[in-house]
Amino acid sequence: MPMSKKIAVILSGCGVYDGAEIHESVITLLRLDQRGAQVQCFAPDIAQLHVINHLTGEEMPESRNVLVESARIARGNVKDIRDANAEDFDALIVPGGFGAAKNLSNFAVEGAGCSINPQVLALAEAFAEAGKPIGLICISPALAAKIYGPGVTCTIGNDADTAAAMDKMGATHQECGVEDIVEDKARKLVSTPAYMLGKNISEVASGINKLVDRVLELTHEND
Amino acid sequence: MPMSKKIAVILSGCGVYDGAEIHESVITLLRLDQRGAQVQCFAPDIAQLHVINHLTGEEMPESRNVLVESARIARGNVKDIRDANAEDFDALIVPGGFGAAKNLSNFAVEGAGCSINPQVLALAEAFAEAGKPIGLICISPALAAKIYGPGVTCTIGNDADTAAAMDKMGATHQECGVEDIVEDKARKLVSTPAYMLGKNISEVASGINKLVDRVLELTHEND
Repeated sequence: MPMSKKIAVILSGCGVYDGAEIHESVITLLRLDQRGAQVQCFAPDIAQLHVINHLTGEEMPESRNVLVESARIARGNVKDIRDANAEDFDALIVPGGFGAAKNLSNFAVEGAGCSINPQVLALAEAFAEAGKPIGLICISPALAAKIYGPGVTCTIGNDADTAAAMDKMGATHQECGVEDIVEDKARKLVSTPAYMLGKNISEVASGINKLVDRVLELTHEND
Repeated sequence: MPMSKKIAVILSGCGVYDGAEIHESVITLLRLDQRGAQVQCFAPDIAQLHVINHLTGEEMPESRNVLVESARIARGNVKDIRDANAEDFDALIVPGGFGAAKNLSNFAVEGAGCSINPQVLALAEAFAEAGKPIGLICISPALAAKIYGPGVTCTIGNDADTAAAMDKMGATHQECGVEDIVEDKARKLVSTPAYMLGKNISEVASGINKLVDRVLELTHEND
């Protein structure tokens, strides 16, 4: 039996409008477990940019912590990203949700002028530099140009404004259906649009399952 | 093509320790969508009993609303259970998490002496009286004796204390593996242990997928 692969997953809270998209995160964890991977979730120990009432879409006058809220998705099994070491893992996956654009980075506010949380960036760069595969889901590919530098190919589906901002940052955006993936073979970067494009949870799951499977396949190139 | 079935899902917050168990809820929604069912989530518009820090397990000094937090799992598409009508649906499913025992009922505090939230009870009773199937996941079967009365058969896995409390309430607890279901054929009640017993998300998904499939099959007995 082959050694089971170790995968780091970065969460960004708990809820599509201010944190990690819950369906995307759970589908990722489920597929990884079904494929026999060992998973460790990480999140930054910082305040969320916003707390959004997911029933009304309005901002709520309170503060929540990204690591603490991410623990809801991870059933308590999440660590401070400060303690993550790329050497301990075979690949990295980042689900979407506005948390990727509000908490892991400030893309939601700054667009092409955004910056990434330094701990998140350092960890992702370490995977990239080690030639270890990364999977970016939904809006998370907006971070790709900061991680890999100019020329990286990825997808967020077909949203023209987001794609234009990504191109401005140096990425090469490629349109993609919700049930499919885009792969930058040289960089071992896999991306899928998920809820940036998807209308229902089944089609989102199809794309994420493909992404997880491909990321796991790519880890074998480093065996 | 057969008419697609309409399924009501009751959520109880967002997080295993104070709300609906997130993995169980998402797996339920995913399987229902994959099988072509139409889903509407409901939750009571009440304060949670507790807010638990899922990283530490400690209670947090704040208040959250069950309906508002459930909207995180439902991506906003959740309604007040006050507006739910069993006549509009073919079946009911209730995922687990402590929310079922803290917010939908007070089983976590009162055990066998518990009561169920009146709106939750009225809705579940309406499904039972109409001969429409109900699926109860994880700790939710603790509510079965209140919904169906004495003699109802169901499972929460093999936890002796919980099973004893359920038997005291009039249920007949039946031991069950995490990847399997227990069915009370006369009542069209299906239950599965999920995280009451499960150690990983894959085996929990196996049991929930069986439950969803069986609940959908049972709806055809009313065609």
